Amino acid sequence: MGEIPESHPRYESLMARKKMTDAAAAGLLADSALIAHGRGEAFDYLLGEKTTESAKSAIMETASQLLAANQPVISVNGNTVALAGIDLIACAAVIECPIEVNIYYRTPERMSALLGALEEQKIAACEKYPELAENIQCVEFLGREPDTKIPGLEGPRANCHTNGIFSSDVILVPLEDGDRCEALVEMGKTVCVIDLNPLSRTAMTSTIAIVDQLTRCVPILLKYLKDGGSQINESWDNRGNLSDGLAEMLRDLQK
Amino acid sequence: MGEIPESHPRYESLMARKKMTDAAAAGLLADSALIAHGRGEAFDYLLGEKTTESAKSAIMETASQLLAANQPVISVNGNTVALAGIDLIACAAVIECPIEVNIYYRTPERMSALLGALEEQKIAACEKYPELAENIQCVEFLGREPDTKIPGLEGPRANCHTNGIFSSDVILVPLEDGDRCEALVEMGKTVCVIDLNPLSRTAMTSTIAIVDQLTRCVPILLKYLKDGGSQINESWDNRGNLSDGLAEMLRDLQK
Repeated sequence: MGEIPESHPRYESLMARKKMTDAAAAGLLADSALIAHGRGEAFDYLLGEKTTESAKSAIMETASQLLAANQPVISVNGNTVALAGIDLIACAAVIECPIEVNIYYRTPERMSALLGALEEQKIAACEKYPELAENIQCVEFLGREPDTKIPGLEGPRANCHTNGIFSSDVILVPLEDGDRCEALVEMGKTVCVIDLNPLSRTAMTSTIAIVDQLTRCVPILLKYLKDGGSQINESWDNRGNLSDGLAEMLRDLQK
Repeated sequence: MGEIPESHPRYESLMARKKMTDAAAAGLLADSALIAHGRGEAFDYLLGEKTTESAKSAIMETASQLLAANQPVISVNGNTVALAGIDLIACAAVIECPIEVNIYYRTPERMSALLGALEEQKIAACEKYPELAENIQCVEFLGREPDTKIPGLEGPRANCHTNGIFSSDVILVPLEDGDRCEALVEMGKTVCVIDLNPLSRTAMTSTIAIVDQLTRCVPILLKYLKDGGSQINESWDNRGNLSDGLAEMLRDLQK
Protein backbone atom coordinates (compact mmCIF):
# COMPACT_ATOMS: atom_id res chain seq x y z
CA MET A 1 0.00 0.00 0.00
CA GLY A 2 1.60 3.31 -1.06
CA GLU A 3 1.47 6.67 0.73
CA ILE A 4 -2.05 7.90 1.43
CA PRO A 5 -2.58 11.68 1.11
CA GLU A 6 -4.39 13.20 4.12
CA SER A 7 -6.87 14.79 1.74
CA HIS A 8 -8.16 11.37 0.61
CA PRO A 9 -11.88 11.16 1.46
CA ARG A 10 -11.30 7.76 3.06
CA TYR A 11 -7.97 8.66 4.67
CA GLU A 12 -8.86 7.42 8.13
CA SER A 13 -10.20 4.09 6.91
CA LEU A 14 -7.16 3.52 4.69
CA MET A 15 -4.77 4.44 7.51
CA ALA A 16 -6.52 1.98 9.81
CA ARG A 17 -6.15 -0.68 7.11
CA LYS A 18 -2.44 0.11 6.84
CA LYS A 19 -1.99 -0.13 10.62
CA MET A 20 -3.59 -3.57 10.46
CA THR A 21 -1.48 -4.94 7.59
CA ASP A 22 1.67 -3.58 9.30
CA ALA A 23 0.64 -5.26 12.56
CA ALA A 24 0.03 -8.55 10.72
CA ALA A 25 3.53 -8.33 9.23
CA ALA A 26 4.93 -7.68 12.72
CA GLY A 27 3.28 -10.85 14.09
CA LEU A 28 0.85 -9.05 16.39
CA LEU A 29 -2.28 -10.60 14.93
CA ALA A 30 -4.03 -13.96 14.71
CA ASP A 31 -4.81 -15.41 11.25
CA SER A 32 -8.35 -14.21 11.16
CA ALA A 33 -7.70 -10.73 12.61
CA LEU A 34 -7.60 -9.05 9.21
CA ILE A 35 -10.91 -10.68 8.29
CA ALA A 36 -12.44 -9.30 11.49
CA HIS A 37 -11.10 -5.86 10.59
CA GLY A 38 -12.67 -6.13 7.15
CA ARG A 39 -16.06 -6.93 8.69
CA GLY A 40 -15.67 -3.79 10.74
CA GLU A 41 -14.80 -1.79 7.61
CA ALA A 42 -18.04 -2.87 5.97
CA PHE A 43 -20.18 -1.87 8.95
CA ASP A 44 -18.29 1.41 9.18
CA TYR A 45 -19.00 1.98 5.51
CA LEU A 46 -22.70 1.52 6.27
CA LEU A 47 -22.35 3.99 9.15
CA GLY A 48 -21.00 6.50 6.65
CA GLU A 49 -17.62 6.31 8.45
CA LYS A 50 -18.77 8.75 11.08
CA THR A 51 -19.45 8.68 14.81
CA THR A 52 -23.22 8.63 15.31
CA GLU A 53 -25.07 10.47 18.07
CA SER A 54 -25.88 7.12 19.74
CA ALA A 55 -22.19 6.21 19.67
CA LYS A 56 -21.32 9.54 21.32
CA SER A 57 -23.79 8.82 24.15
CA ALA A 58 -22.25 5.39 24.64
CA ILE A 59 -18.74 6.88 24.70
CA MET A 60 -19.78 9.40 27.35
CA GLU A 61 -21.45 6.71 29.45
CA THR A 62 -18.29 4.57 29.17
CA ALA A 63 -16.09 7.50 30.24
CA SER A 64 -18.30 8.17 33.25
CA GLN A 65 -18.35 4.50 34.29
CA LEU A 66 -14.59 4.15 33.97
CA LEU A 67 -13.97 7.30 36.04
CA ALA A 68 -16.40 6.22 38.77
CA ALA A 69 -15.11 2.64 38.98
CA ASN A 70 -13.30 1.18 41.98
CA GLN A 71 -11.11 -1.11 39.91
CA PRO A 72 -11.30 -0.26 36.22
CA VAL A 73 -9.26 -2.08 33.58
CA ILE A 74 -8.76 -1.88 29.83
CA SER A 75 -8.48 -5.24 28.06
CA VAL A 76 -6.73 -5.25 24.67
CA ASN A 77 -6.14 -7.75 21.88
CA GLY A 78 -3.95 -7.55 18.77
CA ASN A 79 -6.34 -5.49 16.65
CA THR A 80 -6.87 -3.03 19.49
CA VAL A 81 -3.16 -2.51 20.08
CA ALA A 82 -2.59 -2.08 16.34
CA LEU A 83 -5.41 0.40 15.85
CA ALA A 84 -5.56 2.42 19.04
CA GLY A 85 -2.80 1.36 21.44
CA ILE A 86 -1.32 4.83 21.96
CA ASP A 87 -4.62 6.54 22.68
CA LEU A 88 -5.78 3.72 24.97
CA ILE A 89 -2.58 4.08 27.01
CA ALA A 90 -3.45 7.77 27.39
CA CYS A 91 -6.98 6.76 28.49
CA ALA A 92 -5.50 4.35 31.05
CA ALA A 93 -3.26 7.19 32.27
CA VAL A 94 -6.27 9.42 32.94
CA ILE A 95 -8.26 6.62 34.58
CA GLU A 96 -5.14 5.37 36.38
CA CYS A 97 -5.86 1.78 35.50
CA PRO A 98 -3.86 -1.15 34.10
CA ILE A 99 -4.07 -2.48 30.54
CA GLU A 100 -4.33 -6.25 30.24
CA VAL A 101 -3.47 -8.09 27.05
CA ASN A 102 -6.07 -10.80 26.67
CA ILE A 103 -6.11 -12.63 23.35
CA TYR A 104 -8.26 -15.38 21.93
CA TYR A 105 -5.55 -17.38 20.18
CA ARG A 106 -2.84 -17.12 22.82
CA THR A 107 0.74 -18.01 21.91
CA PRO A 108 3.83 -16.94 23.91
CA GLU A 109 5.27 -15.27 20.77
CA ARG A 110 2.22 -13.15 20.17
CA MET A 111 1.92 -12.19 23.86
CA SER A 112 5.55 -11.03 23.86
CA ALA A 113 5.13 -9.16 20.60
CA LEU A 114 2.05 -7.36 21.93
CA LEU A 115 3.61 -6.45 25.28
CA GLY A 116 6.69 -5.20 23.38
CA ALA A 117 4.50 -3.12 21.07
CA LEU A 118 2.72 -1.58 24.08
CA GLU A 119 6.06 -0.61 25.65
CA GLU A 120 6.99 1.17 22.42
CA GLN A 121 3.57 2.81 22.27
CA LYS A 122 4.04 4.06 25.83
CA ILE A 123 6.99 6.15 24.63
CA ALA A 124 4.96 7.41 21.68
CA ALA A 125 2.05 8.22 24.02
CA CYS A 126 4.33 10.38 26.22
CA GLU A 127 5.36 12.31 23.11
CA LYS A 128 1.81 12.67 21.85
CA TYR A 129 0.33 13.62 25.24
CA PRO A 130 3.16 15.32 27.20
CA GLU A 131 0.61 16.69 29.70
CA LEU A 132 -0.14 13.07 30.70
CA ALA A 133 3.45 11.79 30.58
CA GLU A 134 3.82 11.28 34.30
CA ASN A 135 0.69 9.15 34.53
CA ILE A 136 1.49 7.35 31.28
CA GLN A 137 4.81 6.18 32.76
CA CYS A 138 2.84 4.52 35.56
CA VAL A 139 0.42 2.56 33.33
CA GLU A 140 0.93 -1.11 34.06
CA PHE A 141 0.70 -3.78 31.33
CA LEU A 142 -0.64 -7.16 32.42
CA GLY A 143 -1.04 -10.41 30.53
CA ARG A 144 2.29 -12.15 30.65
CA GLU A 145 1.63 -14.27 33.72
CA PRO A 146 -2.09 -14.83 34.17
CA ASP A 147 -2.81 -16.47 37.52
CA THR A 148 -6.54 -17.18 37.29
CA LYS A 149 -9.38 -17.80 34.85
CA ILE A 150 -12.61 -16.16 33.71
CA PRO A 151 -15.27 -18.64 34.90
CA GLY A 152 -17.33 -20.33 32.20
CA LEU A 153 -14.72 -20.19 29.44
CA GLU A 154 -12.59 -23.04 28.18
CA GLY A 155 -8.99 -23.02 27.01
CA PRO A 156 -6.28 -20.35 27.14
CA ARG A 157 -8.67 -17.54 26.26
CA ALA A 158 -10.00 -17.82 29.86
CA ASN A 159 -6.63 -16.85 31.36
CA CYS A 160 -6.42 -13.52 33.17
CA HIS A 161 -4.81 -11.64 36.05
CA THR A 162 -6.33 -11.43 39.52
CA ASN A 163 -5.22 -7.82 39.84
CA GLY A 164 -6.50 -6.98 36.34
CA ILE A 165 -9.55 -8.32 34.53
CA PHE A 166 -10.57 -10.76 37.25
CA SER A 167 -11.14 -8.24 40.06
CA SER A 168 -12.27 -5.32 37.92
CA ASP A 169 -15.70 -3.82 38.38
CA VAL A 170 -15.73 -1.84 35.12
CA ILE A 171 -13.93 -3.15 32.05
CA LEU A 172 -13.39 -1.56 28.65
CA VAL A 173 -12.92 -4.35 26.08
CA PRO A 174 -12.75 -3.08 22.50
CA LEU A 175 -13.35 -5.74 19.84
CA GLU A 176 -14.35 -8.47 22.27
CA ASP A 177 -15.53 -11.94 21.30
CA GLY A 178 -19.18 -12.78 22.08
CA ASP A 179 -18.43 -15.70 24.41
CA ARG A 180 -16.00 -13.77 26.54
CA CYS A 181 -18.24 -10.73 26.65
CA GLU A 182 -21.03 -12.93 28.04
CA ALA A 183 -18.68 -14.51 30.58
CA LEU A 184 -17.53 -11.08 31.82
CA VAL A 185 -21.13 -9.89 32.16
CA GLU A 186 -21.90 -13.11 34.07
CA MET A 187 -19.14 -12.13 36.53
CA GLY A 188 -21.20 -9.04 37.36
CA LYS A 189 -18.91 -6.53 35.70
CA THR A 190 -19.93 -3.39 33.83
CA VAL A 191 -18.68 -4.39 30.39
CA CYS A 192 -18.05 -1.55 27.92
CA VAL A 193 -17.32 -2.76 24.38
CA ILE A 194 -16.45 -1.15 21.06
CA ASP A 195 -17.89 -3.08 18.12
CA LEU A 196 -18.93 -1.90 14.66
CA ASN A 197 -21.64 -4.54 14.28
CA PRO A 198 -24.68 -3.35 16.23
CA LEU A 199 -26.22 -6.82 15.81
CA SER A 200 -23.28 -8.81 17.16
CA ARG A 201 -23.63 -10.92 20.28
CA THR A 202 -20.91 -8.78 21.87
CA ALA A 203 -22.84 -5.57 21.26
CA MET A 204 -26.12 -7.14 22.38
CA THR A 205 -24.87 -8.71 25.63
CA SER A 206 -22.53 -5.94 26.81
CA THR A 207 -23.53 -3.31 29.37
CA ILE A 208 -22.54 -0.42 27.09
CA ALA A 209 -21.74 -0.93 23.41
CA ILE A 210 -20.02 1.79 21.43
CA VAL A 211 -20.79 1.14 17.74
CA ASP A 212 -17.91 3.02 16.16
CA GLN A 213 -14.52 2.62 14.53
CA LEU A 214 -11.75 2.33 17.13
CA THR A 215 -9.43 4.95 15.64
CA ARG A 216 -12.31 7.44 15.65
CA CYS A 217 -13.91 6.81 19.04
CA VAL A 218 -10.91 6.33 21.33
CA PRO A 219 -9.74 9.96 20.88
CA ILE A 220 -13.28 11.06 21.77
CA LEU A 221 -13.26 8.78 24.81
CA LEU A 222 -9.93 10.31 25.85
CA LYS A 223 -11.39 13.79 25.56
CA TYR A 224 -14.45 12.88 27.64
CA LEU A 225 -12.20 11.25 30.25
CA LYS A 226 -10.00 14.33 30.47
CA ASP A 227 -13.12 16.48 30.85
CA GLY A 228 -14.20 14.33 33.81
CA GLY A 229 -17.09 12.41 32.20
CA SER A 230 -20.58 13.11 33.46
CA GLN A 231 -23.18 11.69 35.85
CA ILE A 232 -23.63 7.91 35.48
CA ASN A 233 -26.96 7.05 33.85
CA GLU A 234 -28.36 4.40 36.19
CA SER A 235 -31.03 3.45 33.68
CA TRP A 236 -28.71 3.19 30.64
CA ASP A 237 -30.60 1.25 27.94
CA ASN A 238 -28.02 -0.57 25.84
CA ARG A 239 -30.49 -2.28 23.48
CA GLY A 240 -32.32 0.99 23.01
CA ASN A 241 -29.09 2.79 22.17
CA LEU A 242 -28.13 0.04 19.71
CA SER A 243 -31.44 0.21 17.98
CA ASP A 244 -31.15 4.01 17.69
CA GLY A 245 -27.76 3.49 16.05
CA LEU A 246 -29.14 0.88 13.68
CA ALA A 247 -31.98 3.21 12.78
CA GLU A 248 -29.45 5.96 11.90
CA MET A 249 -27.59 3.44 9.70
CA LEU A 250 -30.72 2.25 7.91
CA ARG A 251 -32.01 5.79 7.38
CA ASP A 252 -28.78 6.71 5.59
CA LEU A 253 -28.88 3.52 3.51
CA GLN A 254 -32.40 4.17 2.33
CA LYS A 255 -31.43 7.55 0.91
CA MET B 1 -9.00 -22.71 13.45
CA GLY B 2 -10.18 -26.18 14.53
CA GLU B 3 -12.42 -28.61 12.66
CA ILE B 4 -15.81 -27.15 11.80
CA PRO B 5 -18.76 -29.59 12.02
CA GLU B 6 -21.00 -29.53 8.94
CA SER B 7 -23.99 -29.01 11.21
CA HIS B 8 -22.69 -25.61 12.36
CA PRO B 9 -25.26 -22.96 11.38
CA ARG B 10 -22.50 -20.82 9.87
CA TYR B 11 -20.57 -23.76 8.35
CA GLU B 12 -20.27 -22.27 4.89
CA SER B 13 -19.06 -18.89 6.12
CA LEU B 14 -16.52 -20.48 8.46
CA MET B 15 -15.26 -22.80 5.70
CA ALA B 16 -14.81 -19.82 3.39
CA ARG B 17 -12.84 -18.09 6.14
CA LYS B 18 -10.65 -21.16 6.52
CA LYS B 19 -10.02 -21.30 2.76
CA MET B 20 -8.89 -17.69 2.92
CA THR B 21 -6.52 -18.06 5.88
CA ASP B 22 -5.04 -21.20 4.26
CA ALA B 23 -4.55 -19.30 1.00
CA ALA B 24 -2.86 -16.44 2.87
CA ALA B 25 -0.48 -18.92 4.48
CA ALA B 26 0.24 -20.39 1.01
CA GLY B 27 1.21 -16.95 -0.35
CA LEU B 28 -1.72 -16.68 -2.77
CA LEU B 29 -3.04 -13.40 -1.39
CA ALA B 30 -2.09 -9.73 -1.17
CA ASP B 31 -1.82 -8.12 2.29
CA SER B 32 -5.24 -6.62 2.27
CA ALA B 33 -7.05 -9.63 0.76
CA LEU B 34 -8.23 -10.92 4.14
CA ILE B 35 -9.61 -7.49 4.97
CA ALA B 36 -11.57 -7.52 1.71
CA HIS B 37 -12.93 -10.94 2.60
CA GLY B 38 -14.01 -9.64 5.99
CA ARG B 39 -15.93 -6.79 4.35
CA GLY B 40 -17.68 -9.42 2.28
CA GLU B 41 -18.48 -11.46 5.39
CA ALA B 42 -20.22 -8.46 6.95
CA PHE B 43 -22.36 -7.80 3.88
CA ASP B 44 -23.16 -11.50 3.67
CA TYR B 45 -24.21 -11.41 7.31
CA LEU B 46 -26.61 -8.59 6.42
CA LEU B 47 -27.91 -10.68 3.52
CA GLY B 48 -28.68 -13.45 6.01
CA GLU B 49 -25.99 -15.57 4.32
CA LYS B 50 -28.38 -16.65 1.60
CA THR B 51 -28.70 -16.16 -2.14
CA THR B 52 -31.44 -13.60 -2.76
CA GLU B 53 -33.94 -13.75 -5.62
CA SER B 54 -32.24 -10.74 -7.25
CA ALA B 55 -28.90 -12.53 -7.06
CA LYS B 56 -30.44 -15.58 -8.73
CA SER B 57 -31.68 -13.43 -11.62
CA ALA B 58 -28.22 -11.92 -12.01
CA ILE B 59 -26.61 -15.37 -11.98
CA MET B 60 -29.00 -16.57 -14.71
CA GLU B 61 -28.33 -13.48 -16.82
CA THR B 62 -24.58 -13.99 -16.41
CA ALA B 63 -24.87 -17.65 -17.46
CA SER B 64 -26.87 -16.69 -20.55
CA GLN B 65 -24.40 -13.95 -21.51
CA LEU B 66 -21.38 -16.21 -21.07
CA LEU B 67 -22.97 -18.99 -23.17
CA ALA B 68 -23.94 -16.57 -25.96
CA ALA B 69 -20.56 -14.79 -26.06
CA ASN B 70 -18.14 -14.94 -28.99
CA GLN B 71 -15.06 -14.69 -26.80
CA PRO B 72 -15.91 -15.17 -23.14
CA VAL B 73 -13.27 -15.18 -20.41
CA ILE B 74 -13.16 -15.63 -16.64
CA SER B 75 -10.76 -13.31 -14.80
CA VAL B 76 -9.58 -14.46 -11.36
CA ASN B 77 -7.58 -12.98 -8.49
CA GLY B 78 -6.20 -14.55 -5.32
CA ASN B 79 -9.41 -14.45 -3.32
CA THR B 80 -11.36 -15.95 -6.22
CA VAL B 81 -8.95 -18.84 -6.69
CA ALA B 82 -8.95 -19.50 -2.96
CA LEU B 83 -12.72 -19.45 -2.58
CA ALA B 84 -14.07 -20.88 -5.82
CA GLY B 85 -11.23 -21.96 -8.12
CA ILE B 86 -12.44 -25.51 -8.65
CA ASP B 87 -16.02 -24.58 -9.52
CA LEU B 88 -14.89 -21.73 -11.79
CA ILE B 89 -12.69 -24.16 -13.72
CA ALA B 90 -15.79 -26.31 -14.19
CA CYS B 91 -17.69 -23.22 -15.40
CA ALA B 92 -14.89 -22.45 -17.87
CA ALA B 93 -15.09 -26.06 -19.08
CA VAL B 94 -18.80 -25.71 -19.86
CA ILE B 95 -18.34 -22.30 -21.52
CA GLU B 96 -15.12 -23.49 -23.20
CA CYS B 97 -13.26 -20.32 -22.29
CA PRO B 98 -9.87 -19.50 -20.76
CA ILE B 99 -9.27 -18.34 -17.20
CA GLU B 100 -6.94 -15.36 -16.84
CA VAL B 101 -5.18 -14.55 -13.58
CA ASN B 102 -5.31 -10.79 -13.22
CA ILE B 103 -4.21 -9.38 -9.88
CA TYR B 104 -4.03 -5.88 -8.49
CA TYR B 105 -0.74 -6.21 -6.61
CA ARG B 106 1.21 -8.25 -9.17
CA THR B 107 4.40 -10.01 -8.12
CA PRO B 108 6.05 -12.89 -10.04
CA GLU B 109 5.87 -15.06 -6.89
CA ARG B 110 2.16 -14.57 -6.43
CA MET B 111 1.43 -15.11 -10.15
CA SER B 112 3.35 -18.40 -10.04
CA ALA B 113 1.66 -19.48 -6.83
CA LEU B 114 -1.77 -18.75 -8.30
CA LEU B 115 -1.11 -20.51 -11.61
CA GLY B 116 0.26 -23.47 -9.64
CA ALA B 117 -2.84 -23.53 -7.44
CA LEU B 118 -5.07 -23.51 -10.53
CA GLU B 119 -3.20 -26.49 -12.01
CA GLU B 120 -3.83 -28.41 -8.78
CA GLN B 121 -7.47 -27.32 -8.78
CA LYS B 122 -7.84 -28.60 -12.35
CA ILE B 123 -7.09 -32.11 -11.10
CA ALA B 124 -9.54 -31.65 -8.22
CA ALA B 125 -12.15 -30.31 -10.67
CA CYS B 126 -11.86 -33.46 -12.82
CA GLU B 127 -12.51 -35.57 -9.73
CA LYS B 128 -15.42 -33.43 -8.58
CA TYR B 129 -17.03 -33.17 -12.02
CA PRO B 130 -16.00 -36.35 -13.93
CA GLU B 131 -18.73 -35.67 -16.53
CA LEU B 132 -16.80 -32.50 -17.48
CA ALA B 133 -13.30 -33.97 -17.22
CA GLU B 134 -12.57 -33.88 -20.94
CA ASN B 135 -13.43 -30.17 -21.23
CA ILE B 136 -11.73 -29.36 -17.92
CA GLN B 137 -8.46 -30.74 -19.28
CA CYS B 138 -8.69 -28.20 -22.11
CA VAL B 139 -9.24 -25.11 -19.93
CA GLU B 140 -6.35 -22.74 -20.58
CA PHE B 141 -4.83 -20.59 -17.81
CA LEU B 142 -3.52 -17.19 -18.88
CA GLY B 143 -1.71 -14.47 -16.96
CA ARG B 144 1.94 -15.45 -16.91
CA GLU B 145 2.97 -13.44 -19.97
CA PRO B 146 0.62 -10.53 -20.53
CA ASP B 147 1.30 -8.87 -23.88
CA THR B 148 -0.99 -5.85 -23.73
CA LYS B 149 -2.76 -3.45 -21.37
CA ILE B 150 -6.29 -2.48 -20.36
CA PRO B 151 -6.56 1.14 -21.60
CA GLY B 152 -7.04 3.80 -18.93
CA LEU B 153 -5.32 1.95 -16.09
CA GLU B 154 -1.85 2.62 -14.72
CA GLY B 155 0.75 0.20 -13.42
CA PRO B 156 0.98 -3.60 -13.53
CA ARG B 157 -2.70 -4.06 -12.77
CA ALA B 158 -3.39 -2.99 -16.39
CA ASN B 159 -1.49 -5.96 -17.81
CA CYS B 160 -3.50 -8.59 -19.67
CA HIS B 161 -3.46 -11.09 -22.54
CA THR B 162 -4.61 -10.25 -26.06
CA ASN B 163 -6.21 -13.67 -26.41
CA GLY B 164 -7.83 -13.41 -22.97
CA ILE B 165 -9.26 -10.37 -21.26
CA PHE B 166 -8.27 -7.88 -23.95
CA SER B 167 -10.29 -9.39 -26.81
CA SER B 168 -13.15 -10.78 -24.77
CA ASP B 169 -16.70 -9.59 -25.36
CA VAL B 170 -18.15 -11.02 -22.15
CA ILE B 171 -16.06 -11.24 -18.99
CA LEU B 172 -16.85 -12.74 -15.62
CA VAL B 173 -14.72 -10.98 -12.98
CA PRO B 174 -15.56 -12.00 -9.44
CA LEU B 175 -14.33 -9.60 -6.72
CA GLU B 176 -13.14 -6.92 -9.13
CA ASP B 177 -11.72 -3.57 -8.12
CA GLY B 178 -13.83 -0.51 -9.02
CA ASP B 179 -11.24 1.15 -11.26
CA ARG B 180 -10.66 -1.91 -13.34
CA CYS B 181 -14.35 -2.68 -13.59
CA GLU B 182 -14.91 0.82 -15.03
CA ALA B 183 -12.02 0.39 -17.46
CA LEU B 184 -13.42 -2.93 -18.72
CA VAL B 185 -16.87 -1.41 -19.20
CA GLU B 186 -15.20 1.48 -21.08
CA MET B 187 -13.73 -1.10 -23.45
CA GLY B 188 -17.30 -2.02 -24.40
CA LYS B 189 -17.35 -5.41 -22.73
CA THR B 190 -20.26 -7.04 -20.96
CA VAL B 191 -18.80 -7.11 -17.46
CA CYS B 192 -20.33 -9.62 -15.01
CA VAL B 193 -19.09 -9.19 -11.45
CA ILE B 194 -19.67 -10.94 -8.14
CA ASP B 195 -19.54 -8.53 -5.20
CA LEU B 196 -21.21 -8.68 -1.80
CA ASN B 197 -21.48 -4.90 -1.46
CA PRO B 198 -24.47 -3.75 -3.52
CA LEU B 199 -23.30 -0.14 -3.10
CA SER B 200 -19.73 -0.65 -4.31
CA ARG B 201 -18.46 1.13 -7.40
CA THR B 202 -17.82 -2.30 -8.93
CA ALA B 203 -21.43 -3.39 -8.45
CA MET B 204 -22.76 -0.03 -9.65
CA THR B 205 -20.68 0.27 -12.81
CA SER B 206 -20.75 -3.35 -13.98
CA THR B 207 -23.16 -4.65 -16.62
CA ILE B 208 -24.44 -7.43 -14.37
CA ALA B 209 -23.64 -7.57 -10.65
CA ILE B 210 -24.26 -10.73 -8.67
CA VAL B 211 -24.52 -9.71 -4.99
CA ASP B 212 -23.71 -13.01 -3.35
CA GLN B 213 -20.98 -14.96 -1.59
CA LEU B 214 -18.65 -16.64 -4.08
CA THR B 215 -18.76 -20.12 -2.59
CA ARG B 216 -22.56 -20.03 -2.74
CA CYS B 217 -23.19 -18.53 -6.17
CA VAL B 218 -20.57 -20.20 -8.35
CA PRO B 219 -22.14 -23.67 -7.93
CA ILE B 220 -25.48 -22.12 -8.95
CA LEU B 221 -23.83 -20.47 -11.95
CA LEU B 222 -22.36 -23.84 -12.92
CA LYS B 223 -25.80 -25.45 -12.74
CA TYR B 224 -27.37 -22.72 -14.90
CA LEU B 225 -24.51 -23.05 -17.41
CA LYS B 226 -24.95 -26.82 -17.61
CA ASP B 227 -28.69 -26.31 -18.12
CA GLY B 228 -27.94 -24.01 -21.07
CA GLY B 229 -28.86 -20.65 -19.50
CA SER B 230 -31.86 -18.84 -20.90
CA GLN B 231 -32.74 -16.05 -23.35
CA ILE B 232 -30.56 -12.96 -22.92
CA ASN B 233 -32.49 -10.07 -21.38
CA GLU B 234 -31.65 -7.17 -23.72
CA SER B 235 -33.08 -4.66 -21.27
CA TRP B 236 -31.30 -5.99 -18.17
CA ASP B 237 -31.50 -3.27 -15.49
CA ASN B 238 -28.44 -3.63 -13.27
CA ARG B 239 -29.20 -0.72 -10.96
CA GLY B 240 -32.78 -1.89 -10.61
CA ASN B 241 -31.62 -5.38 -9.70
CA LEU B 242 -29.15 -3.98 -7.16
CA SER B 243 -31.78 -1.87 -5.54
CA ASP B 244 -34.13 -4.89 -5.31
CA GLY B 245 -31.32 -6.75 -3.56
CA LEU B 246 -30.68 -3.88 -1.18
CA ALA B 247 -34.38 -3.71 -0.40
CA GLU B 248 -34.38 -7.42 0.49
CA MET B 249 -31.41 -6.79 2.80
CA LEU B 250 -33.00 -3.78 4.52
CA ARG B 251 -36.33 -5.57 4.92
CA ASP B 252 -34.61 -8.38 6.81
CA LEU B 253 -32.62 -5.95 8.96
CA GLN B 254 -35.71 -4.05 10.02
CA LYS B 255 -37.31 -7.18 11.42
